[in-house]
Amino acid sequence: MFLQILNLAGIAVFAISGALVGVRNRLDLFGICVVGTTTGIGGGLIRDLLLGVHPPTSMVEWPNVAVPVAMSLIVCFVHAQLDRVWRAVLLFDACGMGLFAATGASIALDHGAGALAAVMIGATAAVGGGVLRDVLVNEVPMLLRRDLYALPALLGAVLVVVCNQLGLATDAALLVGALTATGLRCLALWQHWQLPQARVSDSSRKGR
Amino acid sequence: MFLQILNLAGIAVFAISGALVGVRNRLDLFGICVVGTTTGIGGGLIRDLLLGVHPPTSMVEWPNVAVPVAMSLIVCFVHAQLDRVWRAVLLFDACGMGLFAATGASIALDHGAGALAAVMIGATAAVGGGVLRDVLVNEVPMLLRRDLYALPALLGAVLVVVCNQLGLATDAALLVGALTATGLRCLALWQHWQLPQARVSDSSRKGR
Amino acid sequence: MFLQILNLAGIAVFAISGALVGVRNRLDLFGICVVGTTTGIGGGLIRDLLLGVHPPTSMVEWPNVAVPVAMSLIVCFVHAQLDRVWRAVLLFDACGMGLFAATGASIALDHGAGALAAVMIGATAAVGGGVLRDVLVNEVPMLLRRDLYALPALLGAVLVVVCNQLGLATDAALLVGALTATGLRCLALWQHWQLPQARVSDSSRKGR
Repeated sequence: MFLQILNLAGIAVFAISGALVGVRNRLDLFGICVVGTTTGIGGGLIRDLLLGVHPPTSMVEWPNVAVPVAMSLIVCFVHAQLDRVWRAVLLFDACGMGLFAATGASIALDHGAGALAAVMIGATAAVGGGVLRDVLVNEVPMLLRRDLYALPALLGAVLVVVCNQLGLATDAALLVGALTATGLRCLALWQHWQLPQARVSDSSRKGR
Repeated sequence: MFLQILNLAGIAVFAISGALVGVRNRLDLFGICVVGTTTGIGGGLIRDLLLGVHPPTSMVEWPNVAVPVAMSLIVCFVHAQLDRVWRAVLLFDACGMGLFAATGASIALDHGAGALAAVMIGATAAVGGGVLRDVLVNEVPMLLRRDLYALPALLGAVLVVVCNQLGLATDAALLVGALTATGLRCLALWQHWQLPQARVSDSSRKGR
Repeated sequence: MFLQILNLAGIAVFAISGALVGVRNRLDLFGICVVGTTTGIGGGLIRDLLLGVHPPTSMVEWPNVAVPVAMSLIVCFVHAQLDRVWRAVLLFDACGMGLFAATGASIALDHGAGALAAVMIGATAAVGGGVLRDVLVNEVPMLLRRDLYALPALLGAVLVVVCNQLGLATDAALLVGALTATGLRCLALWQHWQLPQARVSDSSRKGR
C-alpha cells in the first residue's frame, strides 16, 4: 500500500518535471500532457518491461494514467507564477528519481529478481523517465550533465536491497532509499558538487 | 484477416514516411532502408513488447519485414519526382498513425488487455514508429510539434475500444478508428489547427 | 561457453566505445561510466527484451555489469594517451557490432526463434547499443552515417543462421559471423566505401 502511494507520488512529481520541460520548450497543451505523462509513467514502463509484466502496470491502472495527465494540466495553468521553471524541473526530477529508485528496486525484489538485478532495475527506473523526457525534446539527458545524478539513483536502489537483506521492513527500506537518493541529489545541486572530468588533450576534443 | 491487411498497410505507409525522412536527411541507400524499416515496424514492435509477444510478430513474419524494405527501396528511386517530400512525409505518417492506433488497440484487446491498456497501447503503437524515426535522425518528434498529433491517435484507439464494447464487428471498429484518426490529423494539418500554448513569462524561457 | 566469452568481449569493446564517446563529450567520471555501461549492455538488453528473457541476462550476471564498468574506468584514466579518440571509437564499435550480431543471432536461435527472427534480433542487438550511446549524447547514430554499418551487422547475423542451418558447429558459426561483420565494417571504414545516396532535387532538401 505504502509502496503504491510512493510509486504514484513518483509518477506525479516526474509528470510535473516533464510538463515543465514541455512549457520551457513552448509545446502546446497536448504536447505538454504527452511529455508530462511519458515522463511520469516512463520509468515504471521500462521497469515493467525489464521484469516481464505485461501489459505494464502503468497502462492498466487508472490512477497511474490519470495522475500524470492531471499534473500536466495543472502545470499548464499554474506555471506562469513560477518564474524559475528550470529550478522547479530539477527539484521535481530529483524527487521522482529518488522515489523510483526505491520503489523500482523494491518491486523488482517482489518479482523475485536477485540483488544485482534489483539494483540495476531500480536505477534504470529512476533515470528512465527523465531520459525519455530529455530525448523527446532533443536535449542531452540530465543523466549526463555534470552534477551527481546516476550515483544517487544507484545508491537509493542499493540501500533498498541492503535493507531488505538485513530484514528491515519494506516501508522503512523504501523511505531510507528514496530520502537518501533525493537528498544526495538535491545536496549536489545546491552545493554544485561535481565529479572529476577526464582530462583530454586538445587533439581528442569533439569535432570529427 | 482484415486486421492483418490494415496492419501491413500501416507498416507500408510508415515505412514510406521513414524512407522519405531518410531522403530528406541525405542518408545513403541502406540508411534509408534502415530508417524506413525501423519506422514501419517500430510501432508494432513497441506494441508487442508491451503485450509480451516474444519474439515480436514484426520480426517473425516475412511480409512484415519485406514490405517496409520494398517500400524504402521504391522511395529511393521514385522520390526524385516528388518535389515536396515533407508534405508526403506528413501524409503517409498520418495514414500510418491512424492505422496503427486502430490495429494496436484491437490487437491489445485480442490479447486480453483491459479498456485503458488497449487505448494506451494503441496510442503508443500509433506514435511509436514516428518517434523512433525522428529520434534516429535527431529531430524533435512530430508528436511534439504544434499541430494535433497525439489527440487523433488517442481518439482512434478510444473509438476502437468503444465500438468493441458496444458489440460492433471488429472490422467496422477498425475502419471507424483508423479513418477518424487519420482524417482528424489531416484536417488539422490542412486547416493549421493548433492547440493553445501555455503562456510563459520571459524569465522562464529556455536557456539555462 | 565460447558464446558467453564472445558476448562478454562484445560488452567490453562496446563499453570502451561508449566511454570514449563520453570522454569526447567531456562528461564527468560517472557520466562516462553510465554511457560506457549503457553502450556495453544496451544491445544485449534489447535482445533479451525481444526474446522475452526477464529480467535480462545483462542485469542478472555480475560479469556483464562489472566488465563494462571496469572498461569505462580504465578508459577514464588511459584515454589521454590516445590522441585519436574518434578512430578508437570506430574500431571498438566495429568489433562490438560484429560480436553482437553473431552472438545475438545465435542466442535467438537457442531460444527457438525462426531464421528471420534470429537475423532481425542479431542485427538489432548489433546496432542497438551504439544507437543508445549516440542518442544519449544527442548525436546522429553511427548507424545512419554514410559508411557501411547496418549491412555488415545484417550479414553477420545471416551467416550465423545459414551456418546453423547447414549444421556447422555453433562456435565456428559464431567466428564466421563475427569476423565477417567486423572485417567488412573495418574494410569499409578504411577504404571509405559508401553506398549510393538518393539523388534529391534542390526543392526537397531539408528545411521545412
